[in-house]
Amino acid sequence: MAPEPPYYAVIFTSRRRGDDAAYHATAERMLQLAAQQPGFIGVESARDSEGMGITVSYWHSAEAIAAWKMELEHVQAQQQGRACWYEHYQVRVARVERHYAFERPAQPD
Amino acid sequence: MAPEPPYYAVIFTSRRRGDDAAYHATAERMLQLAAQQPGFIGVESARDSEGMGITVSYWHSAEAIAAWKMELEHVQAQQQGRACWYEHYQVRVARVERHYAFERPAQPD
Repeated sequence: MAPEPPYYAVIFTSRRRGDDAAYHATAERMLQLAAQQPGFIGVESARDSEGMGITVSYWHSAEAIAAWKMELEHVQAQQQGRACWYEHYQVRVARVERHYAFERPAQPD
Repeated sequence: MAPEPPYYAVIFTSRRRGDDAAYHATAERMLQLAAQQPGFIGVESARDSEGMGITVSYWHSAEAIAAWKMELEHVQAQQQGRACWYEHYQVRVARVERHYAFERPAQPD
């Protein structure tokens, strides 16, 4: 789990169009690059079989998110995404105010 | 897109264990029930082939989220989820501070 709230989340919901090997390479590279940015906490992602995807990245501050949005290689990937890969997407920047978790207890042998 | 910020998001990330017809019926019912709650805006969901799922629901206020968490049928579904369906999950309540979207322009014929 992330540090105690408050921290920030970027909720990226998207629909892909078709498939493209370059997309996968770039997506993987962006995950690596994001993880090297100051203020990065973590990322979670799921994409269903119909091409609907949700990626949520977590950050220590809104400033860290703004800096990541402007990172040069990331800006190029965003342009490529609009030109080629996405039918539509939405980005939401949100301040996480509370969180809780459930973890299944280990089963006895 | 939702109303102008600020509004609220509940980010629910989970890993399922196995599969279960009752899960799908309950998940569908919870979507219907959530949509009837005061303050509900919308919901987006994706689950990948490895069982990792992200559901984000959007609400007008933190009070609306608190009321939904306490809704009786939803409380029962949460108990069932912990007893049977989830390996683990995390819930984050976040205040959306800004958002933007991309929509692919219609192609000329």
